[in-house]
Amino acid sequence: MTHAANPDVLRRLKSVEGHVRGVQRMVEEGAYCIDVVNQIVAIQRALKKVSGLVLDDHLHSCVTDAMRGPDEGTRERVLGELIEVFEASGKG
Amino acid sequence: MTHAANPDVLRRLKSVEGHVRGVQRMVEEGAYCIDVVNQIVAIQRALKKVSGLVLDDHLHSCVTDAMRGPDEGTRERVLGELIEVFEASGKG
Amino acid sequence: MTHAANPDVLRRLKSVEGHVRGVQRMVEEGAYCIDVVNQIVAIQRALKKVSGLVLDDHLHSCVTDAMRGPDEGTRERVLGELIEVFEASGKG
Amino acid sequence: MTHAANPDVLRRLKSVEGHVRGVQRMVEEGAYCIDVVNQIVAIQRALKKVSGLVLDDHLHSCVTDAMRGPDEGTRERVLGELIEVFEASGKG
Repeated sequence: MTHAANPDVLRRLKSVEGHVRGVQRMVEEGAYCIDVVNQIVAIQRALKKVSGLVLDDHLHSCVTDAMRGPDEGTRERVLGELIEVFEASGKG
Repeated sequence: MTHAANPDVLRRLKSVEGHVRGVQRMVEEGAYCIDVVNQIVAIQRALKKVSGLVLDDHLHSCVTDAMRGPDEGTRERVLGELIEVFEASGKG
Repeated sequence: MTHAANPDVLRRLKSVEGHVRGVQRMVEEGAYCIDVVNQIVAIQRALKKVSGLVLDDHLHSCVTDAMRGPDEGTRERVLGELIEVFEASGKG
Repeated sequence: MTHAANPDVLRRLKSVEGHVRGVQRMVEEGAYCIDVVNQIVAIQRALKKVSGLVLDDHLHSCVTDAMRGPDEGTRERVLGELIEVFEASGKG
């Protein structure tokens, strides 16, 4: 159920990490609050994009294998996980 | 319009940075996609909390000063910024 | 690609409709803005729950059929739709 | 703390009500799930816009009066309400 690390996902997570450090500097330097909040919103958007990429990988690997496989329990599990992810999304 | 860095905000941003690095490791080690997505949702929630703290500081400093001050243009500006932040929130 | 109407989905949509009318009355009667906004947030949450139910039906019918079927184009289409729905979610 | 009903807010809430009824019909007629979910996302967006308008009124009436008034308790209350609304937003 694991697969090779997607380099685009890793690259974007590194970019998010740099963005978070940039916001720390803004806070340390007393940047205007609204600018800080806007940068945090931009980071949240970047993270949503990463989730979308991870989910895309997931649908094309684990979910496809499970759904085309013979085990109804496994199919039920992957579908239940998708619903949970959808319900948790946008609650950030 | 700037003010001293809130140490709680900085502490939380450092924690978010560590969390993002942790997710990078998960991806590198081929963690299950759903676990990765759930960690990203947790980071988005932590960032939302940080925005809330920054906004709280903002309301108690810049917004309070502007609203109690004599300049209508400044009052209008800070209110407009609040609306924009509200509209952008939850779009991550 | 269609299926019988889910009575729980319909019942919840009727409840949302009544809730929206209730908020109209609140506005007409000059209710406190924050109370109005909180009711709107409650309606958005109820709608998210409805989306979750519809998506659950979709995964157990159309998506399951497509994924277990022979046509790769159809499988690709249903997966692409799921990603789009995920990316659009939480942008309300 | 109340004020005249904003006709634009009411008009938009009536439009949301009609949109919700339209989605009920879609469900009754067995529309494709993804189309239903997309319409629900559109309704959530319309509701977010309504919240933004109500909040705009609120900032220009109750919040402005409270912030420019003499009572620190009242100022604290309106700021606390704004933070709560921000934190609840995007959790739909």
